Amino acid sequence: MGRRVKPAPIGVYDSGFGGLTVLRELSRALPRAEFVYLGDAGRAPYGGRDADVILSLAEQCVERLFSEGCRVVVVACHTVSSVALRHLQARYTGPGQERAVLGVTIPAAELAVDHVSTRGGRIAFIATARTVASGTFTTECHKLAPVAVVERAAPLLAPIVEEGWETSDVARLAVRRYLDGLDAQVVVLGCTHFPLLREAFEAATDCPVLDPAPFVAARLVDWLTRHPDFTVAEGEPRFLSTGDPDAFATHGSRFLGAPVTTVQHVAETAGRLEPAARVVPRGQVVRA
Amino acid sequence: MGRRVKPAPIGVYDSGFGGLTVLRELSRALPRAEFVYLGDAGRAPYGGRDADVILSLAEQCVERLFSEGCRVVVVACHTVSSVALRHLQARYTGPGQERAVLGVTIPAAELAVDHVSTRGGRIAFIATARTVASGTFTTECHKLAPVAVVERAAPLLAPIVEEGWETSDVARLAVRRYLDGLDAQVVVLGCTHFPLLREAFEAATDCPVLDPAPFVAARLVDWLTRHPDFTVAEGEPRFLSTGDPDAFATHGSRFLGAPVTTVQHVAETAGRLEPAARVVPRGQVVRA
Repeated sequence: MGRRVKPAPIGVYDSGFGGLTVLRELSRALPRAEFVYLGDAGRAPYGGRDADVILSLAEQCVERLFSEGCRVVVVACHTVSSVALRHLQARYTGPGQERAVLGVTIPAAELAVDHVSTRGGRIAFIATARTVASGTFTTECHKLAPVAVVERAAPLLAPIVEEGWETSDVARLAVRRYLDGLDAQVVVLGCTHFPLLREAFEAATDCPVLDPAPFVAARLVDWLTRHPDFTVAEGEPRFLSTGDPDAFATHGSRFLGAPVTTVQHVAETAGRLEPAARVVPRGQVVRA
Repeated sequence: MGRRVKPAPIGVYDSGFGGLTVLRELSRALPRAEFVYLGDAGRAPYGGRDADVILSLAEQCVERLFSEGCRVVVVACHTVSSVALRHLQARYTGPGQERAVLGVTIPAAELAVDHVSTRGGRIAFIATARTVASGTFTTECHKLAPVAVVERAAPLLAPIVEEGWETSDVARLAVRRYLDGLDAQVVVLGCTHFPLLREAFEAATDCPVLDPAPFVAARLVDWLTRHPDFTVAEGEPRFLSTGDPDAFATHGSRFLGAPVTTVQHVAETAGRLEPAARVVPRGQVVRA
């Protein structure tokens, strides 16, 4: 028997702006739901970082979203999902916790395996170096079916998108270099920045190019239906960023496909992310 | 009257591989000296991080080099030099400490100002976003002379070099975009990765392109002459990295222009960098 619980916003966590491409699909699937998006842009990119550092950053971000009242957090970042999701789930969720942390890796694997199980062929998964090093996408695919998977790291693509160069010749050349010689029949975008590079991907390959985000949204709707205790609050989206809030609003709109209005700056204080004025220090910084 | 002190190796600290281009010049200037190089590659890039985080990372790295027996540490990274050098000097050096921490910003400013003071014109300083946000290079130039300086952030260039694409069409196009419309008569490479992009820079501009590293080495030799208490030990270079030691050895050789042999992995333990076995986790990482 379901308990009566207070409706809560849904948290969406990403290492930076990229997860806004996931939020766009979540908002389409749940148009009245209140979302709180936390982008760790001040400490991104995560792709090259050690796993232990990623775990610490992820803990701080998820705890901030819990402090914002969220009970369900979608980890929109493939790097965090591939490396730290089990840790976050072990630490924060379970029968007594009344909280849930969901990722993007399993939906991406389900989508890709479904694609090749009807059409055949090999799956190519393009992602950050850390995501690829984890091998988690391949592991999740193989839990579903004995499919052929090739993972390829493309560490420059997220920085190119963060720079706003996604339609440039730099982007087209870089994508072509990363896809060169790829023996696959479907390409999965394994980083939430890559939907902005869809044109460059489609110019570089004849394969179908799959963005997992719409399927991630469909799986969240399904999960909420199966967990009626997790009642979703209604409201406008809110945005938190560890980086420059103005830059977040400006760049974020490109990713969300809609205006990103007020952005709350949060900063690390004694191991926690707390609301803080954005101070951009000039010159040398001397600490007592 | 100089005290008799034990010869000590010279520490060189960088956020990753880039500082090896500085070490190359230091080794040329002091061919018998023993250098200990610490690259914080496991926590790089620093460019987007908050100043307070950079200070903490820098403290850990400098303290590790002191633990290795170094008494002089050269901060080869422009980002750390621009933001944290005064803090490191205030914390670790001074009359009673018998230690010194030197940076690259003032030598870079001296080199640039000297160039335009004889030839005239405006200085362009190309660097990471954090280095440019500090404005420290311009501040140091203006302490020397009322010269015109323009600083420009080029956040994609260090990642392009880390990817090993420095001679690619991607590198040439990216450098050309960053230098586009620059009204200057001399270009200063304000990031230790950029010497590997010298060809791309020289193809994109008719201005002289200055790498401060040889001048940093000359200033160190001069400093050691003026501080005879800091006797330099002789020996082969040693390398420490917070990132993957194998990747450090492979990539590092490109930056150093010589083989990087054994690399000691160091990792953060209770706020200190200590020697540690390198564990590259596969799949999900769960921490107690």
